[in-house]
Order: sequence, then structure tokens, then C-alpha cells
Amino acid sequence: MRVDLNSDMGESFGRYKLGLDEEVMNRITSANVATGWHAGDPIVMRKTVRLAKEKGIAVGAHPGYPDLMGFGRRYMKLTPEEARNYILYQIGALYAFTKAEGMELQHVKPHGALYNALVKDEELARAVMEGIADFDKGLIFVTLSGSRAAEIAEEMKLKVAHEVFADRAYNPDGTLVPRGKPGAVIHDKELIAERVISMVKDGCVKAINGEWVELRADTICVHGDNPKAVEIAAYIRRILEEEGVKVVPMGEFIR
Amino acid sequence: MRVDLNSDMGESFGRYKLGLDEEVMNRITSANVATGWHAGDPIVMRKTVRLAKEKGIAVGAHPGYPDLMGFGRRYMKLTPEEARNYILYQIGALYAFTKAEGMELQHVKPHGALYNALVKDEELARAVMEGIADFDKGLIFVTLSGSRAAEIAEEMKLKVAHEVFADRAYNPDGTLVPRGKPGAVIHDKELIAERVISMVKDGCVKAINGEWVELRADTICVHGDNPKAVEIAAYIRRILEEEGVKVVPMGEFIR
Amino acid sequence: MRVDLNSDMGESFGRYKLGLDEEVMNRITSANVATGWHAGDPIVMRKTVRLAKEKGIAVGAHPGYPDLMGFGRRYMKLTPEEARNYILYQIGALYAFTKAEGMELQHVKPHGALYNALVKDEELARAVMEGIADFDKGLIFVTLSGSRAAEIAEEMKLKVAHEVFADRAYNPDGTLVPRGKPGAVIHDKELIAERVISMVKDGCVKAINGEWVELRADTICVHGDNPKAVEIAAYIRRILEEEGVKVVPMGEFIR
Amino acid sequence: MRVDLNSDMGESFGRYKLGLDEEVMNRITSANVATGWHAGDPIVMRKTVRLAKEKGIAVGAHPGYPDLMGFGRRYMKLTPEEARNYILYQIGALYAFTKAEGMELQHVKPHGALYNALVKDEELARAVMEGIADFDKGLIFVTLSGSRAAEIAEEMKLKVAHEVFADRAYNPDGTLVPRGKPGAVIHDKELIAERVISMVKDGCVKAINGEWVELRADTICVHGDNPKAVEIAAYIRRILEEEGVKVVPMGEFIR
Repeated sequence: MRVDLNSDMGESFGRYKLGLDEEVMNRITSANVATGWHAGDPIVMRKTVRLAKEKGIAVGAHPGYPDLMGFGRRYMKLTPEEARNYILYQIGALYAFTKAEGMELQHVKPHGALYNALVKDEELARAVMEGIADFDKGLIFVTLSGSRAAEIAEEMKLKVAHEVFADRAYNPDGTLVPRGKPGAVIHDKELIAERVISMVKDGCVKAINGEWVELRADTICVHGDNPKAVEIAAYIRRILEEEGVKVVPMGEFIR
Repeated sequence: MRVDLNSDMGESFGRYKLGLDEEVMNRITSANVATGWHAGDPIVMRKTVRLAKEKGIAVGAHPGYPDLMGFGRRYMKLTPEEARNYILYQIGALYAFTKAEGMELQHVKPHGALYNALVKDEELARAVMEGIADFDKGLIFVTLSGSRAAEIAEEMKLKVAHEVFADRAYNPDGTLVPRGKPGAVIHDKELIAERVISMVKDGCVKAINGEWVELRADTICVHGDNPKAVEIAAYIRRILEEEGVKVVPMGEFIR
Repeated sequence: MRVDLNSDMGESFGRYKLGLDEEVMNRITSANVATGWHAGDPIVMRKTVRLAKEKGIAVGAHPGYPDLMGFGRRYMKLTPEEARNYILYQIGALYAFTKAEGMELQHVKPHGALYNALVKDEELARAVMEGIADFDKGLIFVTLSGSRAAEIAEEMKLKVAHEVFADRAYNPDGTLVPRGKPGAVIHDKELIAERVISMVKDGCVKAINGEWVELRADTICVHGDNPKAVEIAAYIRRILEEEGVKVVPMGEFIR
Repeated sequence: MRVDLNSDMGESFGRYKLGLDEEVMNRITSANVATGWHAGDPIVMRKTVRLAKEKGIAVGAHPGYPDLMGFGRRYMKLTPEEARNYILYQIGALYAFTKAEGMELQHVKPHGALYNALVKDEELARAVMEGIADFDKGLIFVTLSGSRAAEIAEEMKLKVAHEVFADRAYNPDGTLVPRGKPGAVIHDKELIAERVISMVKDGCVKAINGEWVELRADTICVHGDNPKAVEIAAYIRRILEEEGVKVVPMGEFIR
């Protein structure tokens, strides 16, 4: 039984610092490194890739909308051609840093509003995946577990990691309860750990209405923007290991 | 006797069109493709690389300062660490498009004010070249013929192409007469061709004060932003070929 | 009987040129000047305001989404607070140039996707108008004739100019047929002029299905990005004047 | 005896937070509000102006280079026309927020590398001041005490506030010892206060080599990016008041 723990890293920009990257990297197995559009800059990218190398963490690209002011969290209507080439650009940019540091690029996880938009928009999902495949069909596409996007990845013969969220409530259909709705974010460490174990070992989680939802947990998203989040990440990892789950980079088991 | 003809390509951005790329590509052997910082965007980069492929032209990266408003033509004081990683980022971004189109990346030619700054600033020159070497030591660095930067490239065991300018006046020390000074830009097609032949076949050019300057001409910079420039590029190529010079991509003879 | 002719101006950026501003300004009465977010920069803004002054044209702000790469033509999901303050910022920026040139700011016409979005989204429409009112309740808000946004402007006691489009087909409900749909753009000069006369003098236009749509024409949008557009603008103005319609800046009759 | 205390405020951007604005505003009399180019965004500008209003603090514009990635701290070579219009744009943008909140715009203090560059470059200094005068000759221009820029301001009949730095070492010629040099930044609270008193009351400060430098202290720059800085600001203010100096906005005494 194996699972990956991923977190968004390298989201500082110029003089602006964000995230406890160093602390989080002690806990996770895969780092989603921002590629300079919604966050990150070349200096930050270099440092983040280097840090991941030191910590023995796998690296993936975390491309987003061209919207630094909105941190990539605002929907933008892109054409498929735009989406495909924006993704390709950002993958290449990060690839340069992994190459410079002698690392492999493991995966691609779109950021924020782009992550959410492609789960609902099949054409956008295809365009993003074409951008990934344009670069390297060996890259793992990370997307919401059980989503149509995950199915399309399989149809397109792209490697896909089904992602679950440790601290987010689910709707009965397997989608996330939007942030802002009551109960959308779970704060209790014990409850988070319990849900993670259930997702990883039993392939299901209790939805916000009490029903059980089936899902596949290849990788668990954890946060690193505050000390509490780091503590939760550490706790999740410890509990997973106590339960006999091997916590390893997704590249070791996604084929 | 061999020489390359290079031109800056892919400098459109969003709705803004610049340059007669298609016409120029019929004349040159190497395209310097803008990488989205001073000009260019992912859609433009894709189209430009694809066009180069169709035309059988070699592709290089044309990275610049992060200054779209100034078209990369304004000096910015960067630290070596910034310069190195900005170059690396932009090379990676363009590499993604060459990879997607099944092409090789041949060279890197810095743009505008960055091109000029590194010729005068040894520390900056080293930083830019470290950025290139971080990505791939097989890439050719294109810089001003006879400059200190070209020497440093050789010290750093980087491939280097000595570049000459078809339509620019030279100072007796081999530097370019700055645009804006009287006589800095040469407009006469016959004179341009004559100077190009002299540079390529005899390794020298007459400076603005009448003295002869020695230089090495691996690649000749031509322009493509107006119909006259395209005509000049076509004329230079024809005269070179009539003189028995083979006009081929620099990658065929720079080792 | 009076009408205003408006056109988007000052959409060049840095080295990128767009639009035949000088020619168009000979034909129109109000210039919508881009404010640096979707297009325009401070140098362009200065020149455009100065040109409008020379030509005796009224000036308004033409704010857009923060999306130069998409020329403000891509929908972005903004919060009302974002929309309000983005508009306010851009109005202030342009105001500085009108102040420097001793001109008045007459109106605000949102650009592109923002123009379209607020016509369909009441909350966004209110936010944009609050941004305008924050600056100056005397500014005229230019919006689609007959739209809910125009009604809201009246509820908010904001001056409003009902805008019609010379070369665009209308749906029977008074909305525009989206670009890209067959027949959406009208190219025939005579037909355009006929429709304009009908809109201005009779307050109606024939929709794409043949039905008559009622609308109020305070200002007519004309284009200036190509010589044909300029010719059409000149033709419309001539025909309007021949028909006895006074073509004057909207500020002279909108109260 | 009167002096102003100023600090850079509103330097957050999107999701990125910077500075302890609320705490610092309790201590100072004038806020230099970032205008969205080197830092700040419209939401941040609105909040910062509103906060200044609540605290009874005067507001000025803090325009910078178009370089968010470098936080406006990197020199960029601008033409006078660019500098003038970039300043004008940014003043207008901030003015919109002061107008919306019913406040006056008191002053303009250029940021970072632009502040430093204009002190050394007379042509740039004139261009910046023309930008200010274009908007409103009643605005106070804040610049390095005793600099050539301050003289030029007087020649141009612009109001000028001579600024001193509480925690920075001076060269014997009245320029600042560059950050990075040993002893450039003073950390000792007592020593800072002593120097401030000497500058305000006696019009002189001990240079890094022990000589006394004469200067005029209209406004003292304090920092707000960390708790220690806020404590120092509070301490300076207390000591000044104990010494009988009135700490009031510069607009109250600069004519």
C-alpha cells in the first residue's frame, strides 16, 4: 500500500515570501513547484528545486493562469490553444531548473482556478494534457481523484495520479465542497488523519452529507503556508506510516 | 567558407504583431526566437518554432530583460544570480516548444540591452553563460564578434558564434557605433553587401573612422521588421552565395 | 437630434503599434483611451490625450482586465471589490494625463470582455459603477444600449450613455450577436450607414432574424484598427450630418 | 521646531503580505503609498488610504520602476519622457483612491532605485519633477536632504521636503553609505534616536568617518517591515516629542 504526499512549493515572488517550504519538504514526497505565472520567479524556482533535491523530494511543475495579482485563483477563459501552450511554456521553464540541478521532472499539477476549471471543462482538460504530452508523455498528470479529467488522461494514454485533499470536505459526487461554504475546510488534525487513512486504505471518504464516496488516493495534497499546516502534514505522514502505508513519490508507483 | 544568417523572430505579443517572420525565414538560416519576457508569448513561440521547422531553419533562444514595456531595450541592473536564472528560465521555456515540434535548440542569443550590457560587463557575461551551461553545454552562445564575452565563452568551454552586424557601423575597437549617433546605421544595400563580403571573406570591416577592424564572422545579424530589411537580407544572401560562401546554420560549423 | 461617435484609442504598447488613431480622431467626437492594463502605456496615454486635445475630441477612460496578453478580451472572474478598485485605479491613471494636458475626463467605457461581462452580471455592473462614482459622479458611464447595466446606472444616479454598434448584428433582445457567429459583423458600408441612421433617428434596428429592436443611440462605436474602418467612420459621420444629425461629444447632451 | 515621520506603506500585493502597516501608522505622520508598479495593487491601495484616513495620517504617492519582480530596487535606464509619464500615471492612480476616500494627496516620494537614481542624475530628477508638476504643483516632492535634486526642485518652484534617514550611515558629502557596506545600517535604538535629534534640532549628523555633515531634516524615513522597526519608529517619535519637537505631517510646514 503506497501513497504520495504533495504540496505546493516555491510560491514566493521577488521580495515576497510565502510558505514554509523547508519545513514542509521534510514531510512530503512530491513538490509542486510554481512556474512564475501565478507565483514563483526564476530565483525562487532554482532555490526550490535545489531544496527538493537536498531533501530527496520529487519535483513537478505547478503551472497556473497568467495572473500574479490574483495568485492564479481567478477563473480566466482561455482557448484550448492558449491553455495548451501556456502549460507547455511553464513546464519547459521549470524543466530548465530540474535539468540544471540534475533532477528529473516527475509530474504536472495545474494550480488553483486552472486545476478547478479543467475538472469541469473537458475541452480545457484535453488542452492542458496535450500541453503535457507535447513535452513528455512520461510526465504524470495530477488531477482530482475520480474526475472526468482523470478519465480523459487515461484515454489519452497519459500517466495520471488521482489526488485527494486531506483537509477538504467532499460532495457525494466526489467533487470538493467549495471553499467559503460552511464545513468546506476541515481543521481537526485527528479527523483529517482518520479521513486520509480511510481514503488511502479503504478507497472511500465520508461526504459532507454523511454518504460514503469511493475514490482512489494516489497522492494527498497537504498545505505548507502556516505552522499548523506543517504540523498536520507531519501528523498525516506519521499516522500513514504507523498504518503500514509506504509514503513515496508518485513516480515510484504510477505507471 | 561558411556563414550563418540570423534574425530575431517571434517578437509579436498577444494581439500585437511585429516583424515579417515568414518572409525573413525564407532568407536566413537561424532564428532567434523571443521567449516571452521582452516580447513573444506561448502562442507566438509555438507558431514561430513551427514556421522555422517548415522553412528548415535552426532555432535558438532569444532571452531578454523582464521588460515588455521597454521591449528589453532598457538597461536593468541585475545581480549575476538573477541574470543566470532569468536566462535559464527563458531557455527552458523555448526548449519546450522545440521539443514539442521535434526540433533541436541550437543557440542562445541574448536580446537588446542585455546583449549590449554583457559585452561590457564581464560578471554579467559569465552569469549569462552559466545560465546557458546550466541547461546544456552544447548550446552555442551568440555574441559580438571579438568581444571580451566571446573570449570568456572560450575560457568557459562554451561554444561561441562571433556575430557581425550587416547594417551597423563599427568603431575602430570593434564595438558598434551606438544607434542614434550619425552614421550608426547603414541603409545602402550595395554598401551593406560589400561590407558583409569583406567581413566573411577577409575577416575585416572598415570602421567609421576609415581604419580597418579585424573580426570573425560566424553569423550575420539581419533584420525583419520591414520590407526593406527583408529585401536586404535576400540580397546579402544572394551575394554571399554568388561569392561562393555557403550560408548554413551555425550549428553545422561551430564546434 | 444629436449623437456621439466613439472609438477605442491609445491601444499601442511600448514598441507595439495598433490603430490609426490620428486618422480616426478626425472623424469621431469621443476617444476611449486605454489605461495600461489591457493595452496602452503612459507614453501612449500622454500622446493620445494630447492628440485628442489637438483634434478637439472629448476623452474618456477605457479600463480593462489586467490581461495584456489577452488584450482584455478574455473573461476573468473578479470579485466586486476587485472590479471596483481596478476601475478606480485606471480612471485615476488616465485622469492624470487629462489633468496634465488641461482637459476634462468625460466618460468611462469598460473594454472588451469586461464590457461584455458587466452587461450580463448585475453585481459586476454595480461594482464597476461604484468605481466610477468613487472617482466622480459626473463621469458618463458608457454601456450597451438597453442593457440592465444602463438601468442600474440610472438607479445609481450615474450619467449613462447608451451605446450602439455600427457594424454589429443584433439579437431580437437587443444583445449583440457574438463575434464568430455567421453575420455577426457587417462589412457593407451602405448597410452600416443605413442601420446607423435608423438607430439614431428612429430608435430601432433590424435584428438578425428580421425583427425590429428598439434602442437608444447616444453614442455609436466605430473602429479604427484598419483603413477600411476609418473610411466607414468617415462615411457614417457624413451621412449622419447629411441627415441633419449633430455629431457632438456625449458630454454636450448627456445629463 | 517641527518634523514629519514618513514610512513606505501598502507594499503588499495580491496574496503577498508585506509590512506592519497598521502598527507603523500609529507612529508616523505621512504614509508613502505604493502605486502598483514596484508593489501594491488597487485593493491594497484602497485599504492603505482608508487606514491612513482612520489614523489621521497624510498620504503621498510612492511611485517606482515597472519592476515588481525586483521590488523597484534595480536600476532601469529610463528616458526622461518615460520617467515623467510613469510618475504621472502612478500619481493619478493613487490620487483616485485619495479622492474616493475624501483625502488630499500631500506628497510624492519616488521608491527604491528610482529614488537613488534621480539623486545622481539631474536629467532624471527634472523629468520626475515635471511628472509631479504636470499633475499638481502643490504636491511636495520628497528627496534626499541636501541633494542636487532638492536644489532643482527649488529652481523649478516645486515644494520640496528634505528627507533624512534615521537608521542609515552618511558619507561626509551627505550621501548615504550604500546598503551592503559595513556600518551602512544602524541598528542601535539609542544611537538612532540620538542621531535623529541631532539632525532635527542641530541640522547635522556625524558621517561614517566621524566628520559632521550639515543637513536639513523636514521628514525622517522610518521602516515598518518588522516589529523591531516599528519599535524604533515609536521610540524616535517619543524622544522627539520629549525634546519638544512637534511631529506633524510635512504638509503643515512645507510651503
